[in-house]
Amino acid sequence: MFVYNIDHIAIAVRDLDAALAEYERKYKVTPISVETVPDQGVREAMIAIGGSHIQLLEPLEPDSGVGRFLERNGEGMHHIAFAVVDIDEALEHLENEGARLIDTEPRIGGGGHRIAFVHPADLTGTLIELVEVDDG
Amino acid sequence: MFVYNIDHIAIAVRDLDAALAEYERKYKVTPISVETVPDQGVREAMIAIGGSHIQLLEPLEPDSGVGRFLERNGEGMHHIAFAVVDIDEALEHLENEGARLIDTEPRIGGGGHRIAFVHPADLTGTLIELVEVDDG
Repeated sequence: MFVYNIDHIAIAVRDLDAALAEYERKYKVTPISVETVPDQGVREAMIAIGGSHIQLLEPLEPDSGVGRFLERNGEGMHHIAFAVVDIDEALEHLENEGARLIDTEPRIGGGGHRIAFVHPADLTGTLIELVEVDDG
Repeated sequence: MFVYNIDHIAIAVRDLDAALAEYERKYKVTPISVETVPDQGVREAMIAIGGSHIQLLEPLEPDSGVGRFLERNGEGMHHIAFAVVDIDEALEHLENEGARLIDTEPRIGGGGHRIAFVHPADLTGTLIELVEVDDG
């Protein structure tokens, strides 16, 4: 299969530092990275758990994708990211299958990875991110 | 840390077979198990991806947890499950930390595992399941 891992589950939060403190206190997990990704309008933390990650997303401003999500839904699960070996091939396959792509071409996301989003209306109400991660 | 893996991400769906067919067509993934779990009022499928799983949940009847979730929210991400080595120890720790537990004692979930849920209002709007999975 071309999806070889669940890279992360992203959760939208209002206050990243408060959320990280509470994940540590309750679940004894700590982030491996915290970075600002202006292109996506977020400050984000990655918490490694097993072979996957919880990603916490705090919007940089209210008028951003994650800001509007919080306004509409409050805090909660935002998207799932599938790791793929070749994102161009994955996007071509999805396009051929009639998937409703948000990004028809990859762009650069957190960690410098090539990413693309598939619209939640495409499949089971779930916003899906494809992320090209080196298999090693 | 006592949470050692993200066991699965659960997604509520209206029609399990249709959702499975579409995951296979678009992402080339197939389930490793499909089972009915009357205690939770669902028919569920597990799709293994890397070291984790996507779990698809179809309600057995509208008046069930997942049925009411679909009524309120439509299809979408329902909960995250953390694998723990010792669920009694994990629940005791969470109780000591003042977490808002749905289950103060473990019950039996899919695959015969001992499970317990933590209320979404407890942390980042996210319904969290603890599942005791053998480390091997």
